[in-house]
Amino acid sequence: MSTPVPCGTIWGVGLGPGDPELMSLRADRLLRETRHVAYFRKAGRKGHARQSVEGLLATDVVEYPMEYPVTTEIPVSDPAYNATLSAFYERVSDHLAALARSGADVVVLCEGDPFFYGSFMHLHSRLKDRVPVRVVPAITGMSAAWTATDQPITWGDDVLTVLPATLPEDELVQRLKGSDAVVVMKIGTNMPKLRRALAQAGRADQTWLVQYASQSGERVMKLSDAEEGRMPYFTIALIHGQGRRP
Amino acid sequence: MSTPVPCGTIWGVGLGPGDPELMSLRADRLLRETRHVAYFRKAGRKGHARQSVEGLLATDVVEYPMEYPVTTEIPVSDPAYNATLSAFYERVSDHLAALARSGADVVVLCEGDPFFYGSFMHLHSRLKDRVPVRVVPAITGMSAAWTATDQPITWGDDVLTVLPATLPEDELVQRLKGSDAVVVMKIGTNMPKLRRALAQAGRADQTWLVQYASQSGERVMKLSDAEEGRMPYFTIALIHGQGRRP
Repeated sequence: MSTPVPCGTIWGVGLGPGDPELMSLRADRLLRETRHVAYFRKAGRKGHARQSVEGLLATDVVEYPMEYPVTTEIPVSDPAYNATLSAFYERVSDHLAALARSGADVVVLCEGDPFFYGSFMHLHSRLKDRVPVRVVPAITGMSAAWTATDQPITWGDDVLTVLPATLPEDELVQRLKGSDAVVVMKIGTNMPKLRRALAQAGRADQTWLVQYASQSGERVMKLSDAEEGRMPYFTIALIHGQGRRP
Repeated sequence: MSTPVPCGTIWGVGLGPGDPELMSLRADRLLRETRHVAYFRKAGRKGHARQSVEGLLATDVVEYPMEYPVTTEIPVSDPAYNATLSAFYERVSDHLAALARSGADVVVLCEGDPFFYGSFMHLHSRLKDRVPVRVVPAITGMSAAWTATDQPITWGDDVLTVLPATLPEDELVQRLKGSDAVVVMKIGTNMPKLRRALAQAGRADQTWLVQYASQSGERVMKLSDAEEGRMPYFTIALIHGQGRRP
């Protein structure tokens, strides 16, 4: 009888906001050591996460690209959207579980921080009761964004609200009115709606935009200086808190 | 005539949540290279930030401990509190500016992320128009905390609210009711107030507590399993979002 192989671990490794030097020492070590790497990408693309670690991985690393079956073709409100994505997450989770059971550790590349609006969560929930899963936190895109504005986001007793720009316009207005400091994520095509909401909430003049924070092509501007229309997906809007400052 | 010395840079370097392997590659490099290091501490203590980088600094690094003149002796509401702290920040900023003007780069150790409720902000605002100042973002304590619970903090369109437990009880109740995901910072002696607010908002059963996230002595528990009374300062309360998950 052969000795049973010990089960490997699936690592959800946060890569941070994009600047390779802003990765954690742990992420850097795991990337260099791993024999198996997995990452999400759009069909037909190299993959943004994969590109960002070029040069760190072993030359003979085994790659598992997980290609989204759907991104913007089906509206989020259509039940087929969830069903299609769910079947995809099941399928890739099965593959990762099989790899772990064969004894392999697998590093899953996660842009930003895995547990903060990250896609890895959908694998984590499907894998955690089947094989060992561990998560390495990372610097969020929003931390890189407020650092890029060269202004603190929160002082003293400031409340910070993080809003997805996908919310309905009315809700955005109410939330924008009710918070000291604000971060808005998931902007992209929602920019015209967000711009209206900021104006209605009386906060447009305080708003900064950061595109591609910490990456090449980083841009920092006041909303009042920004062009109209949609924005890149990697755009974050910020309103800095004005709390107590001795 | 002697050649003028080029001005040095004051670096506000985020150390992250405490686990040394969760520092960024940039922070690690700057710490190893620097000839001057500055850090806050309570009078008579070694300093938590300073201790956390033991072994990384050059053996002949020049140290500048910045000792708080006041912590809990004067109530925050007393005008003397702000005046005393302000004079302290002015004094240490003058010293750092003089170091930079002498040509030295100085690394200021910052626990967590410098621009997220960090003390470095009070130096940054006093130095940025006088000498070059740069900030290195870091993994926040809250990222380490939600990672420690092994559950994502935000899904889909979840709104995340970050609350200082120093807020009045009524405001805590309203904010706790009105958000999907919640992070509460600055708990310490405010724990009994926070516990009442969570109960009133009907969210006590969903609340997790993480003490010393990513540090030795890390503890993760449901609020319902926690002892009564005050908590360590490095305690973070979390309510996980329940948003869309295909």
